Amino acid sequence: MTHNCSFLSDLALDGEVSFGESARESHAADFGAEERGLGVTPDAVVWPESTADVSAVLAAADERRVPVTPFAAGTSLEGNAVPARRGVSLDCSRMDAVLDVRADDFQIDVEPGVYGSAVDEAVADEGLFFPPLPSSGDISTVGGMIANDASGMKTVKYGEVADWVLELEVVLADGSVVAAGSRAAKTSSGYNLKDLFVGSEGTLGVVTRATLELAGRPEQVRGARALFPSLDAAAEAVFDAARSGVDVATIELVDEDSARMANAYTGTDLPDAPTVFLEFHADHGVAREIDFCREVFADHDCQRFETAADDAEMSDLWEAREDLAYAIQLWDPDLTALHPGDVTVPISAYPEMVRFVKSAADDRDLLVPCFGHAGDGNLHYSVLVEEDDPGRVEAAHELYEATVEKAIDLGGTATGEHGIGLGKRDFLEVEHGPETVEAMRRLKRAFDPRDTLNPGKVFPETEDGGRVRADDDAPPHD
Amino acid sequence: MTHNCSFLSDLALDGEVSFGESARESHAADFGAEERGLGVTPDAVVWPESTADVSAVLAAADERRVPVTPFAAGTSLEGNAVPARRGVSLDCSRMDAVLDVRADDFQIDVEPGVYGSAVDEAVADEGLFFPPLPSSGDISTVGGMIANDASGMKTVKYGEVADWVLELEVVLADGSVVAAGSRAAKTSSGYNLKDLFVGSEGTLGVVTRATLELAGRPEQVRGARALFPSLDAAAEAVFDAARSGVDVATIELVDEDSARMANAYTGTDLPDAPTVFLEFHADHGVAREIDFCREVFADHDCQRFETAADDAEMSDLWEAREDLAYAIQLWDPDLTALHPGDVTVPISAYPEMVRFVKSAADDRDLLVPCFGHAGDGNLHYSVLVEEDDPGRVEAAHELYEATVEKAIDLGGTATGEHGIGLGKRDFLEVEHGPETVEAMRRLKRAFDPRDTLNPGKVFPETEDGGRVRADDDAPPHD
Repeated sequence: MTHNCSFLSDLALDGEVSFGESARESHAADFGAEERGLGVTPDAVVWPESTADVSAVLAAADERRVPVTPFAAGTSLEGNAVPARRGVSLDCSRMDAVLDVRADDFQIDVEPGVYGSAVDEAVADEGLFFPPLPSSGDISTVGGMIANDASGMKTVKYGEVADWVLELEVVLADGSVVAAGSRAAKTSSGYNLKDLFVGSEGTLGVVTRATLELAGRPEQVRGARALFPSLDAAAEAVFDAARSGVDVATIELVDEDSARMANAYTGTDLPDAPTVFLEFHADHGVAREIDFCREVFADHDCQRFETAADDAEMSDLWEAREDLAYAIQLWDPDLTALHPGDVTVPISAYPEMVRFVKSAADDRDLLVPCFGHAGDGNLHYSVLVEEDDPGRVEAAHELYEATVEKAIDLGGTATGEHGIGLGKRDFLEVEHGPETVEAMRRLKRAFDPRDTLNPGKVFPETEDGGRVRADDDAPPHD
Repeated sequence: MTHNCSFLSDLALDGEVSFGESARESHAADFGAEERGLGVTPDAVVWPESTADVSAVLAAADERRVPVTPFAAGTSLEGNAVPARRGVSLDCSRMDAVLDVRADDFQIDVEPGVYGSAVDEAVADEGLFFPPLPSSGDISTVGGMIANDASGMKTVKYGEVADWVLELEVVLADGSVVAAGSRAAKTSSGYNLKDLFVGSEGTLGVVTRATLELAGRPEQVRGARALFPSLDAAAEAVFDAARSGVDVATIELVDEDSARMANAYTGTDLPDAPTVFLEFHADHGVAREIDFCREVFADHDCQRFETAADDAEMSDLWEAREDLAYAIQLWDPDLTALHPGDVTVPISAYPEMVRFVKSAADDRDLLVPCFGHAGDGNLHYSVLVEEDDPGRVEAAHELYEATVEKAIDLGGTATGEHGIGLGKRDFLEVEHGPETVEAMRRLKRAFDPRDTLNPGKVFPETEDGGRVRADDDAPPHD
């Protein structure tokens, strides 16, 4: 249903408000919602330019029970930033200031609309970098990364975004402003609000400022690429490297299908073979670490192990991997990439997970290129399918469900880094069980009793349309 | 007031119940509460032996509005495990099984009563260790470490306890059992309940099982010890090492007073000088890293830099530091060690923090030995004072308040690893502000509306005696 958002015009905002169709339509999609018909168009768009703006919009919307869905780059994959109930799209992309760099403390303060790559640029002269930056760092914002607890290729060594967020300023649904976390390296002072907001997909509060931690760039960076005779051998090699304690900064698996698509897109002449891409970071002894990895991989029939000594060689080595997401999307104009898989399992189960996905694809005669942050046990895959063939779409959906359930059976998670959004709501209870999901609902009610913030996300649908039931005092808007 | 706990006898528990005085008295103190008169004696003690026991006790107590305070080793420093409102002491020390070791995944499942050192022993044969283990690892339990988000000497390289907890089984106040976290290395699936329970000091739930992550032991471990002409030079050297990116696994500062006490207690003949104790971990190149550190320290007038090549030498080098806490406590029978300081500040502010504490001690003619996990910006100190002299005790308290407030002014935290407990409640709002503390109270109400779990902790006293107000449906017991 449509919500009356005319109250926005009465607010004294630094930022802009639009009710225009093109603004609204451009806030009705992300990188994964459209193909799957997820989400609806907002009734209005606001571009706040200050914490006060965010607070004023939320307080007014909450009072009127109008939904507010935070938005920024719109590059999420599960409809995370697309409204489920219309209302206001709160586009934080204009809050994009780098506020302070404290190189001595390895800290930077930024607004949520700053792009990930801009963080790295702001601190490059200091010899620092933001280690958990996702591969999508140049098209995704810090706010979005925090909302989904994103991670990246270097997470295997450095951890996920949550590990590099020190302090957050957050506006709650009622407009109140809280500070979560500390600029100290560690704290035991009160409840860890910071890590509750990280990964909550804008359903508990809106981040208006973040203090991020940075790392010193290692003195030695080397890339490597290893080819294997089978996907199974490659996955077993990754597991063995992890078990053996090889110190890698990146360890990415790419299957034959993905390699073929990447070669076609990038124009590279890499063999269409299962490939592991690696990066090693060290201040000392990087060459010995690479040798160790080479030995472990040799036990798994690695056929070729190439290393890059400098940036140019590294760039060549990695070229095919860098553009893989686009390569898959653009592989065949008759096929649509559905269901961006993001399962993550304990590392010992990784080979089995990979086998399961490929076998599920073969069983259904589906083209399912696989790749992923293998060292984290994270596997991505896309199901390429004829979108206008309901039988094929249904088969794709079956595969998707089966693989997520398999990951959960193996002790893993439905999503390693993309979040639940709209697309994975049905798996929340499968993964966590009803008691744990009820505990999560308690948190939602505690911070957002009127279900104002990004309603309809994360939690599975219920009889009342997926709403997190509010207490009697604050019934959900309707 | 006393609570009627006779209902405990009617529960069909695997574990034991006692109403005896000695059992109750032994649960009325920890390592910090007694000297400061914190806490009261429970009315009953229960030793649960299963999750079902914990659930049954909590459900029954919650229904009757009887407070339940989780307990285990009783070695906390801020009265964290000592009842504030009598009721039941829930002693989890008999839930001490190591349930499973999955070496391939670097994981171990334990019950909360397992001692920290037992975790390391259980995985030693696999070449693994639990990196955030506190120095108190042989006298503190995993449950206690999780409750306070403890950290240790190796936190500067490896992170705090929270970073090494993957999954928790938690019993809520109403007896329901939830699973928080995932055995996958990373997850974006729903709210991060796991890190909400970590550090919540048993006020939101009781941990009954934990899956911890482990690390492979490094191939090269070297210790070092550096002497400085002044405490200021030592603190500046630590800051410079951090800023320069020296890769240390441990970097501990010890001031002259502490060095003198440690020498006296341990019988070592280390100079009574400001000292930095170090440990380096690497698979390759540890010698070069040590040389780099030596160079940085030389810029700060380091007078002697000794290294240890093997375990025996390491043990000699570290001997004085290992027993420091006891050395301080036993320094002078006429002096009592009050106020276990645990401030933590951004590393650039560490030299200023150290100067402030020593200067505040000089101003008041107080003996205040300082030491700490310097690389984390964490400073410990004890105020040694004539306990029967109210003026001196008051001066000690003034110093304590002033130093915590200074740490907060410097962007730091009142407690880096000991928790708030009873001792630091007054600082919660100073550090976080009223809006943030109210957000924390919302969480308490969401999970424990009847204020059953460890009531009176973490939050500052209010007019009604420090209670977290429950909603009308569930008024606090009285």
